Amino acid sequence: MSLQTQTPSQLLQSFTTRTTDYNQLINSVGINAITPQQIQRIEKLSGKAPHHYLSRGVFLAEKSLDKFLDDVEAKKPTFIFIQKYPQKEVALEEYITLEFARYLQDAFNIQVIIQILDDIKVLNREATINEASKMSNDLMKYILAFGFNEDKTFIYTDYQYFGKMYRTISLVEKATAYNVVQPFFNFEYSDNIGKLASPSIMTASMFSQSYSHFFSSPARCLVLDSIKNVQFHSIIDQIATTLNFIQPTVLFHKMVPLLSGVTKFDIPSDHNSILLSDNAKQVERKINKLAFSGGRNTTEEHKKLGGQCDIDVSFQLLNIFSSDNAQVKDVEEKYSKGELLSGELKKIVSASMKDFIVAYDAKKKPITTAYLKAYISKTKF
Amino acid sequence: MSLQTQTPSQLLQSFTTRTTDYNQLINSVGINAITPQQIQRIEKLSGKAPHHYLSRGVFLAEKSLDKFLDDVEAKKPTFIFIQKYPQKEVALEEYITLEFARYLQDAFNIQVIIQILDDIKVLNREATINEASKMSNDLMKYILAFGFNEDKTFIYTDYQYFGKMYRTISLVEKATAYNVVQPFFNFEYSDNIGKLASPSIMTASMFSQSYSHFFSSPARCLVLDSIKNVQFHSIIDQIATTLNFIQPTVLFHKMVPLLSGVTKFDIPSDHNSILLSDNAKQVERKINKLAFSGGRNTTEEHKKLGGQCDIDVSFQLLNIFSSDNAQVKDVEEKYSKGELLSGELKKIVSASMKDFIVAYDAKKKPITTAYLKAYISKTKF
Repeated sequence: MSLQTQTPSQLLQSFTTRTTDYNQLINSVGINAITPQQIQRIEKLSGKAPHHYLSRGVFLAEKSLDKFLDDVEAKKPTFIFIQKYPQKEVALEEYITLEFARYLQDAFNIQVIIQILDDIKVLNREATINEASKMSNDLMKYILAFGFNEDKTFIYTDYQYFGKMYRTISLVEKATAYNVVQPFFNFEYSDNIGKLASPSIMTASMFSQSYSHFFSSPARCLVLDSIKNVQFHSIIDQIATTLNFIQPTVLFHKMVPLLSGVTKFDIPSDHNSILLSDNAKQVERKINKLAFSGGRNTTEEHKKLGGQCDIDVSFQLLNIFSSDNAQVKDVEEKYSKGELLSGELKKIVSASMKDFIVAYDAKKKPITTAYLKAYISKTKF
Repeated sequence: MSLQTQTPSQLLQSFTTRTTDYNQLINSVGINAITPQQIQRIEKLSGKAPHHYLSRGVFLAEKSLDKFLDDVEAKKPTFIFIQKYPQKEVALEEYITLEFARYLQDAFNIQVIIQILDDIKVLNREATINEASKMSNDLMKYILAFGFNEDKTFIYTDYQYFGKMYRTISLVEKATAYNVVQPFFNFEYSDNIGKLASPSIMTASMFSQSYSHFFSSPARCLVLDSIKNVQFHSIIDQIATTLNFIQPTVLFHKMVPLLSGVTKFDIPSDHNSILLSDNAKQVERKINKLAFSGGRNTTEEHKKLGGQCDIDVSFQLLNIFSSDNAQVKDVEEKYSKGELLSGELKKIVSASMKDFIVAYDAKKKPITTAYLKAYISKTKF
């Protein structure tokens, strides 16, 4: 796969209109749209109905998914991998990969590994070691709330686990020329040297060689990631080839639009996104006040032309986060036809998202600091 | 201290004549010659005669030595640090820092910490992980042969210890701008990213924060190093200042000339140097056949003008490695006056160096692989 020198921000700047053309994006970066056949195969292999993330195209693109499914079918070693960057605020978008990992673990009974990049947070000068550690602990609680099978789930921060991973990291470093990653990460001459080496930390974690206590032979990794990181995965493939490691399979999900309706490579915050820490009232306020509407200028026009689901943020949120297939289909139809007004749509979405947040909150409540400590000490290597 | 952008090789190229002007070197890089008063103070504090490395100027320059001696006197925490790069062949020059560390440990009862850069060997593409590990084990045996107080000596390789050191390494990385280390290390755009970050590994090890199990409060580090690395220490001082860590004290030793008489930034090998693995016969052959002579062209001329000790490799070897002060003084006088011919000098040096090598060999013999294993498991953290 040839490396594109366009940076993710450059790439995604061309998609910051309100209607992201995902097909164009997929074609331009050499990955594949997920096919109905692949979804059927997942259903067949797992014996479970496919997650609505698949049926509604929240996960929409893939790289070597068939190989992963072959390995699952042949009962070869595999694992699911997610990488998380600690932030003060945990955006709603973070929910997607975690929920899907939980579903896949449940469907296929696979090891899940989640890396928290506390060191990169420090190297990027966004936090001290102590602050990054606090954010990571908070994030770990958010993650544990998903109810993973804890015997098959390893969540670690780089500072905790670096020692075990370092041999693999150094091999990845050796295989990664500065001139390959520099254009992708926009590295500058005045950047600190840890930042320059950080791609190796974010890559080594996708190779089973980093987890020798789980895998005695090479295991295929399935990475769940936002499509905005698509180019990094072509670098990872190059590195894997150099080292003769298995190229990770990747499932890419859509970006969650900012409340303003723009989909861009931006850090979600309280001002532009719903956060996982928001309460029901905050969710309601954000949808009513801030969510960009795909409705028409006048009621008359709306009834005549219909609402635009593809740019309506409320509808996008419902489509991504509601598990009620019948409702989503019904709302989509009625809104498109103009039978449902923008205010009515917001009311429906508000109620659904409030239920969603309340349900998540209830699962997060039992994850106390003591619970977290017990989990960490149980998974220490 | 202002950073010189001259690289060590550039700097040392100006000293590759047969008479290295160490005074000029010391003045140009902002360090200090070791004074007789400092040597007296070491003698007084330790209650032992100063090592001939001090009295004969093998260690000839220093950076903040007085602060280190103040700390020793005040019984504040300190440690001695040496960094070793694994090589297939262990050159005689490696002996100097190890022997001096042994002497200082004996004199002051201080913790000795020795880092073996196995990972850097891999990043520099000079060995696989397995090869580097084998070289490191061999090197560890050479080191243990010096008879350190093993309860106060910690020898580690980066691969073994990285996990414990990584928080400090990441802070050092953060404090190290690429544009500061690039000119010093001659980094290129096509270099691998691990190489670019490697200065942090070589620096973090000089801060007591990397050894939290030894030091509950910051401890001053005394580094023993060749003067050829002098510029790297000014970078380290900058990093220490940024991080508010203690700037390491450094004692610099002379370079051991290659057998051809040239002192340069070159990798010692069997072709140009005596190795610690050489036997008595090999040592004799190298001195007789290869050691550059400071004698004159004819016996007559030699008797008239005298031999040149400052460029005679045999005499340099005797001066550095013989502990017999009276003999060294006597030989220096007679050779300078022309009373001793070059062949006679070589015979004396040959005998002395053969004794030296045989004595070292006898100490190394008991350091078996089993012994090494027991040592490593005793010092594991």
